[in-house]
Amino acid sequence: MDSLSCVASDLLPLLGNSTNATAAADFICNRFTAVSNKLSDASYAIDNTYLLFSAYLVFAMQLGFAMLCAGSVRAKNTMNIMLTNVLDAAAGGLSYYLFGFAFAFGAPSNGFIGRHFFGLKEFPSELFDYSYFLYQWAFAIAAAGITSGSIAERTQFVAYLIYSSFLTGFVYPIVSHWFWSGDGWGSAAKSDNDILFGSGVIDFAGSGVVHMVGGIAGLWGALIEGPRIGRFDRSGRSVALRGHSASLVVLGSFLLWFGWYGFNPGSFLTIMKSYGTKRTYYGQWSAVGRTAVTTTLAGSTAALTTLFGKRLLVGHWNVTDVCNGLLGGFAAITSGCSVVEPWAAIVCGFIAAWVLMGFNKLAEKLKYDDPLEAAQLHGGCGAWGVLFTGLFAKKAFVNEVYPGRPGRPYGLFMGGGGKLLGAQIIEILVIFGWVTVTMVPLFYALNKLNLLRISSEDEMAGMDLTRHGGFAYIYHDEDENSNLPQFKMTRIEPTNTSTPDHQSNTTV
Amino acid sequence: MDSLSCVASDLLPLLGNSTNATAAADFICNRFTAVSNKLSDASYAIDNTYLLFSAYLVFAMQLGFAMLCAGSVRAKNTMNIMLTNVLDAAAGGLSYYLFGFAFAFGAPSNGFIGRHFFGLKEFPSELFDYSYFLYQWAFAIAAAGITSGSIAERTQFVAYLIYSSFLTGFVYPIVSHWFWSGDGWGSAAKSDNDILFGSGVIDFAGSGVVHMVGGIAGLWGALIEGPRIGRFDRSGRSVALRGHSASLVVLGSFLLWFGWYGFNPGSFLTIMKSYGTKRTYYGQWSAVGRTAVTTTLAGSTAALTTLFGKRLLVGHWNVTDVCNGLLGGFAAITSGCSVVEPWAAIVCGFIAAWVLMGFNKLAEKLKYDDPLEAAQLHGGCGAWGVLFTGLFAKKAFVNEVYPGRPGRPYGLFMGGGGKLLGAQIIEILVIFGWVTVTMVPLFYALNKLNLLRISSEDEMAGMDLTRHGGFAYIYHDEDENSNLPQFKMTRIEPTNTSTPDHQSNTTV
Amino acid sequence: MDSLSCVASDLLPLLGNSTNATAAADFICNRFTAVSNKLSDASYAIDNTYLLFSAYLVFAMQLGFAMLCAGSVRAKNTMNIMLTNVLDAAAGGLSYYLFGFAFAFGAPSNGFIGRHFFGLKEFPSELFDYSYFLYQWAFAIAAAGITSGSIAERTQFVAYLIYSSFLTGFVYPIVSHWFWSGDGWGSAAKSDNDILFGSGVIDFAGSGVVHMVGGIAGLWGALIEGPRIGRFDRSGRSVALRGHSASLVVLGSFLLWFGWYGFNPGSFLTIMKSYGTKRTYYGQWSAVGRTAVTTTLAGSTAALTTLFGKRLLVGHWNVTDVCNGLLGGFAAITSGCSVVEPWAAIVCGFIAAWVLMGFNKLAEKLKYDDPLEAAQLHGGCGAWGVLFTGLFAKKAFVNEVYPGRPGRPYGLFMGGGGKLLGAQIIEILVIFGWVTVTMVPLFYALNKLNLLRISSEDEMAGMDLTRHGGFAYIYHDEDENSNLPQFKMTRIEPTNTSTPDHQSNTTV
Repeated sequence: MDSLSCVASDLLPLLGNSTNATAAADFICNRFTAVSNKLSDASYAIDNTYLLFSAYLVFAMQLGFAMLCAGSVRAKNTMNIMLTNVLDAAAGGLSYYLFGFAFAFGAPSNGFIGRHFFGLKEFPSELFDYSYFLYQWAFAIAAAGITSGSIAERTQFVAYLIYSSFLTGFVYPIVSHWFWSGDGWGSAAKSDNDILFGSGVIDFAGSGVVHMVGGIAGLWGALIEGPRIGRFDRSGRSVALRGHSASLVVLGSFLLWFGWYGFNPGSFLTIMKSYGTKRTYYGQWSAVGRTAVTTTLAGSTAALTTLFGKRLLVGHWNVTDVCNGLLGGFAAITSGCSVVEPWAAIVCGFIAAWVLMGFNKLAEKLKYDDPLEAAQLHGGCGAWGVLFTGLFAKKAFVNEVYPGRPGRPYGLFMGGGGKLLGAQIIEILVIFGWVTVTMVPLFYALNKLNLLRISSEDEMAGMDLTRHGGFAYIYHDEDENSNLPQFKMTRIEPTNTSTPDHQSNTTV
Repeated sequence: MDSLSCVASDLLPLLGNSTNATAAADFICNRFTAVSNKLSDASYAIDNTYLLFSAYLVFAMQLGFAMLCAGSVRAKNTMNIMLTNVLDAAAGGLSYYLFGFAFAFGAPSNGFIGRHFFGLKEFPSELFDYSYFLYQWAFAIAAAGITSGSIAERTQFVAYLIYSSFLTGFVYPIVSHWFWSGDGWGSAAKSDNDILFGSGVIDFAGSGVVHMVGGIAGLWGALIEGPRIGRFDRSGRSVALRGHSASLVVLGSFLLWFGWYGFNPGSFLTIMKSYGTKRTYYGQWSAVGRTAVTTTLAGSTAALTTLFGKRLLVGHWNVTDVCNGLLGGFAAITSGCSVVEPWAAIVCGFIAAWVLMGFNKLAEKLKYDDPLEAAQLHGGCGAWGVLFTGLFAKKAFVNEVYPGRPGRPYGLFMGGGGKLLGAQIIEILVIFGWVTVTMVPLFYALNKLNLLRISSEDEMAGMDLTRHGGFAYIYHDEDENSNLPQFKMTRIEPTNTSTPDHQSNTTV
Repeated sequence: MDSLSCVASDLLPLLGNSTNATAAADFICNRFTAVSNKLSDASYAIDNTYLLFSAYLVFAMQLGFAMLCAGSVRAKNTMNIMLTNVLDAAAGGLSYYLFGFAFAFGAPSNGFIGRHFFGLKEFPSELFDYSYFLYQWAFAIAAAGITSGSIAERTQFVAYLIYSSFLTGFVYPIVSHWFWSGDGWGSAAKSDNDILFGSGVIDFAGSGVVHMVGGIAGLWGALIEGPRIGRFDRSGRSVALRGHSASLVVLGSFLLWFGWYGFNPGSFLTIMKSYGTKRTYYGQWSAVGRTAVTTTLAGSTAALTTLFGKRLLVGHWNVTDVCNGLLGGFAAITSGCSVVEPWAAIVCGFIAAWVLMGFNKLAEKLKYDDPLEAAQLHGGCGAWGVLFTGLFAKKAFVNEVYPGRPGRPYGLFMGGGGKLLGAQIIEILVIFGWVTVTMVPLFYALNKLNLLRISSEDEMAGMDLTRHGGFAYIYHDEDENSNLPQFKMTRIEPTNTSTPDHQSNTTV
């Protein structure tokens, strides 16, 4: 960078007294203007590249959810749960385009619900570009995916269609408006001075806004539906209804890990922004990298804690539990990932693992059945994460990530007082309340109308056979004349080759 | 970069009549030159980062194809179809390096076939960098993948090797030269004035160039081979030969969705380019983001339309059909994704779903058997997409994406006249004709030489057993002394542990 | 952007023979300083974006490993091997944070072991940012993953925990310090003049540092444990113990291919750097793209060579062998990917395929059992890759990638003398020696303490049942009253619905 340096004392003796001063000034200034425009272009290009690829990663989480859910349910409900995951993305695409984004980010607003950009009208603007819409859409579809895990294996498909649209199109966008929009009443980035407790809520990537919303919706749905048949036996003992494929569980968990690098570091939205002046190497890019590191450490710690915790409690080295622990650590760090030190992320993950194990124990006691542990994981660990931020947010990081409000509160344990913690507790209570008053009546009404739970016959047979056209897997083919002398195929089912099209092939 | 250039002799007379003027001019101009170079570097770095990661995403589609194809065939042909997908990428890597890229982009050419850069000679140049080669390679291997779906489960492996090399190395590169190279006779970005209908064809990311080419090749292959044994019963009724794993189908479809964000938005090739001067926030980055949004909306709409359409027609909520509908929406929007409004993308996806359902109905009527619905999906929806662009391309977007030709035609329904639509129809006809005259003789000759279709014995037994060394899955192990008292393993096949190496283990 | 604005009327009165020359100079120079700072910011933002997304891709390789390993072992050990892959990432995250990174890159050092940045203390610095830590972590976890493949299906979980921590936390970081840190005694980028053979070792992305380390560790582990029961029959003939899912093998291989684009091109660490001055279009971005191309060509060639080689030798078109060949090509090109021409990459891949086939033949002869062929593939092809670089490294590329040392040696076959080749041979010997003296005592001690190998009863039953809580797959549900008239589920196992929670469900 040496050749760009410009020292006043070097230039001073070089200037003279010409009559062409106007032209000279134009000459120089036009070039500075061109440079400035080009730098502005570069900034837009870099930030959009960063945000778009982050959005693609967050989208990959939907694939992760689909595989995790599929592997965690029994084989007979695989197609059902995967269809809900595909539809979360597809239906969410339309509803978020039509009104979800407008509710969430349609500033200026009254602080409670946005009201611009319906159907992306007058878009893009100086405030928002398409990459931002895509990124927020990828977040919106995650919330509904969480809920579908809680009520898996026993919910009517039409009920799913209804609650999912309601959650993605209304309940979630409102919450994201409150805590993420510059106009939101609880936002830490609120533009005016009327900010909650002089602090606002720091829920950087959404332990509360995304994970708690999805988890609490799932909690109520699963409570109102009741447990799956056979989940608790006649004497009330808990019976594990194990998922049908650990490979899919691990595949899904790793994909979620991969996608979380879009979810957490991506939430900065931009990467080209310097912090301070002297240490020029230190800027938003460092904070983005640090966020990726805190995310990694929290998940890793939670996974290891679960490994040894479950070994002590149960006696197995259990891979699916380790995966859930991992995800619990991620759900927890999501709130504070950008404003805590790496060592604090380790604390966050360690406790998240015990929060999850504790809530799982409690769920068993209360005969609460959640096939994906979604309420415990996303609701429980998500709430812990929101609190954690109120305890461990570091002064310097808070001021860098949420600039322009000197002296703002930060983590209680870091010497920043209790105001941030207070705001965080408010977020937990408000989210719990809002999701409850919106989702409980909905699930209750669906239940009363016999639209919520499938019949016990269908539940025993599995939804794939009864509603989705057949079993998800066919490993043994039924070919009439496959009795070749050389390669004998095992046949364990009756032959029924001539199944007419579109009529389900019920052999497994 | 012209406006940033700073020549000392220009500045010299503007400065004062001092003897230091020369030095002053040098001082300032050297700095502007350094800035200009640095900005040029930044531009290369940003655009290459963008293009490389887009290429990686497009490559991920090959994985998506492999999983989609594997899940859509019967278990006994899984290894066969996956091997073809691996080889599309690997053999395509060599052939595209040796001559495919040269045929496609070896400008200057006569407009019909390129003739430079064989084996990447004299590469990189000011025109093309390695990232561009990689990106185009990832496209080339997609076309052959489509075709392998149409003729799955009954084609000799050697036939696959032959048609695949021919398609990737010759048929496809020629088409991409015509419509994508600056020299191509049909290209909308043609550099001279001799442009088709004063418009050229707008096939931005290749609904025609990639999807129709692959789909039509598949159509002829499948027609010449005839349907799989058992696909239509003795009374002529259609019999569903369901794929063996819905999980792999959903995994593959989501990976294709993920990769399509490299395919469509990536086709801009660069991201650092401003549109206009006043609204500096609006540039190619916005268009890139908008393209990601139109892609998302078209796929989402097609998926939802298929969900409800099939529910009405068939009575099931079918996840594999929804996945195919989704992909049909993507294949259709691929042509116009960069030049249409988001609302138009919804129209595109809605109709694409019906196009696919219609062609599937027709295929059944005509006893046409395509295990992946590849001809219907990529050929049919691809063709619809090419037409759609001629109807809905928006004036402003067309001029931004294909600049430098004021007053050029745009979409018929947008008031832009019929010339673009005419060019689009020409593309459809020409692609249909070209693929037909090249691929039909090839498939016909292979068939005559008994190199195309496997024997009916092999077809019944499955290709994995007969050609690829064994069945793809072994869920039940055969261990001689596994009769442990504690953990009883179910055994349903005869024991044959001591299979010598390299001799296929035929138990399932 | 305010400080970059330049209005002519502001500058006008400052120029001329006035006393305002000082102000004029300030005016201009302040703007150049601002431009310089902004360009510096852009550079950090671009390079961090590039490095972070490359790190995410390398992380995706861990998922690839998990799926490849899972598919390559028998179904009864699926959960075990996947758990080790999850733990490589999680435990590696903690240990690399606490001390691994410090050992590897804690410069200044004595050339043998780093000693700064324990627990990321005083981080980030001008030398390193968080993105760099994340990228190196993703590399560290790969090495342990390789080893776990060699000793799969017969190793106690506690042994895995011990060797894995030792390898990731100590053995591997030391090696990476030697060859990659600017202080390392063998590094080609060594900052002082005391450089090995006047050349240093060129192991750009780690054919030796990563792949040989993992492969040789696996070699010793597998040798000390001995082959799996049944791998060689009583008469000493080799018996294939085929993996349980070819779909998982292909999925994993494609994911590794995808991730390798982060591994090899990503190893440049930065992308915004110009080479030379005249040809401004040519810079590190071109070299990054070229590296992606050499990687692609080497893997593709190795895959094709294996396809036809195995067809000749064995008679099958074998997809899992082709996948292994592909990965062997990648492991080989990893060392020289940035400094060889694309045509040389084809040579590299061709020979890598035969190296792998040769070592596999040898392994069979010697009754060496490696379920993933990890020692042959990563050790053997990795070593070939290190040699290959000494033969084919091109002068111009070596000087661009390792600048600042004119006249340095390059590839023997390219006219660069034998010094580079000598350094490469030293690397191979040193890595073999170091891994041997560290890992052999460890495996030997574990073996003596009966901590290494599981009992033969457990091996026959499978580790999933005996240690990990159950079988990985349940395709057939056991529901007491599933005898619905309409949908008959096949039942092939005895009913045991009421399994209490946390007690393994042993039915398959």
